[in-house]
Amino acid sequence: MSIQQSPFARKLGAFVALSGEELSALDRLHGRRKTFPAGRDIVHEGQVNHSAYILASGWVCSYKLLSGGTRQIVDFQIPGDFLGLRSVLFRTADHNIEPVTKVEASEVPAADLLATFGKTPRLATAVLWAASRDEAMVVEHLVGIGRRDAKERTAHFLLELGARLKLVGLATASGYACPLSQYMLADALGLSAVHINRELRELREDGLVTFQHGKVEIHDLDGLVALADFDKTYLDHDGPLLK
Amino acid sequence: MSIQQSPFARKLGAFVALSGEELSALDRLHGRRKTFPAGRDIVHEGQVNHSAYILASGWVCSYKLLSGGTRQIVDFQIPGDFLGLRSVLFRTADHNIEPVTKVEASEVPAADLLATFGKTPRLATAVLWAASRDEAMVVEHLVGIGRRDAKERTAHFLLELGARLKLVGLATASGYACPLSQYMLADALGLSAVHINRELRELREDGLVTFQHGKVEIHDLDGLVALADFDKTYLDHDGPLLK
Repeated sequence: MSIQQSPFARKLGAFVALSGEELSALDRLHGRRKTFPAGRDIVHEGQVNHSAYILASGWVCSYKLLSGGTRQIVDFQIPGDFLGLRSVLFRTADHNIEPVTKVEASEVPAADLLATFGKTPRLATAVLWAASRDEAMVVEHLVGIGRRDAKERTAHFLLELGARLKLVGLATASGYACPLSQYMLADALGLSAVHINRELRELREDGLVTFQHGKVEIHDLDGLVALADFDKTYLDHDGPLLK
Repeated sequence: MSIQQSPFARKLGAFVALSGEELSALDRLHGRRKTFPAGRDIVHEGQVNHSAYILASGWVCSYKLLSGGTRQIVDFQIPGDFLGLRSVLFRTADHNIEPVTKVEASEVPAADLLATFGKTPRLATAVLWAASRDEAMVVEHLVGIGRRDAKERTAHFLLELGARLKLVGLATASGYACPLSQYMLADALGLSAVHINRELRELREDGLVTFQHGKVEIHDLDGLVALADFDKTYLDHDGPLLK
């Protein structure tokens, strides 16, 4: 795969029209490709001086464990997303990063990343944009858990995943492949797995969306958007700001 | 006040040892100082092509309104924080920004900000760090609402504010001035004002912390940290990464 078609380049390209030099700098960041099996942490909370990664294929989840043993999933990462960027800047990881499926990711040592920013400031700005978009998603999850009922929250989450996957060529308007279990959805949405199961059944019976056998099929996009009050401004898919 | 002592320079200085040239670039960003009264939005959700601001004095809150009329406060901003950075990168504001008190802030047009990043890439990296720290705080608020009980959540929030204010010279180990009402705390923590009132009374009666008459007084820092399971790694106060 040429760098122009990598999910990461596609994603940053939504914000910055990347020059040949910037694409080459991205290419060099992608040098060290690694494979990780599902279910074993790539980075764990408290780990120091680890690398960041750019996810090339597969799904990952970021979560925090509480002293009582409960887990809060903060977000899922899909191809094109950074893993552990914040923890590299902070030197100490403030969350855990675990592959949901087998994944391929490019290792980016902190020093390489900071040197690249110094030499290609538009890339630094593009990564700032990507980090801001990640923050916007966490904000939506906070608003969802704080103020949306279980059905709206579930619908909003499925729409967000669809929009994110579409940006990197992994979804169409009618749906996408999704490897998440109901337990993972539950830990992300602050619901029990039984509750999630009931909400998904209702959404299906309403003729809006079906999530089963690893596939999300959207039957009525407008109806789902209306139910979830989904305004995708926060995903910023309006085309490059930096020409 | 010289730029070296501005809250923004102090905050970025926690991540990057700023050079004279970088301080001058910061100084130019601070050019257009404005004053805003409490209670009237500086930026509202859906607004396009507005400026970002660097907060010099006073407190601000960022919130989202839901179609049902409820409000979720995402975070409060204190001196040294950026306001609306994400919304400038996205061109359209995805949240509202309202002064809690009278505030002074420097207006930073999007074009000036992007031009500064291009010329001083270490500043771009420092702002990426600050944005990552903002994201880490939203993550903690998500974990708090999703998984911490009301008392732990309230304690965690008061400790976080204290640590943030200390970084910019506005708190000591024994406390800080805090203009937030119980209604604001309630909308931030996903609790009712009555519930917040009860938790604050319990925290005071336990001899941990008192919040009244606009002051937070910490009586037993270790006890409060233990109750909240507060690990300030996510605020990254370990000294500059970029020398």
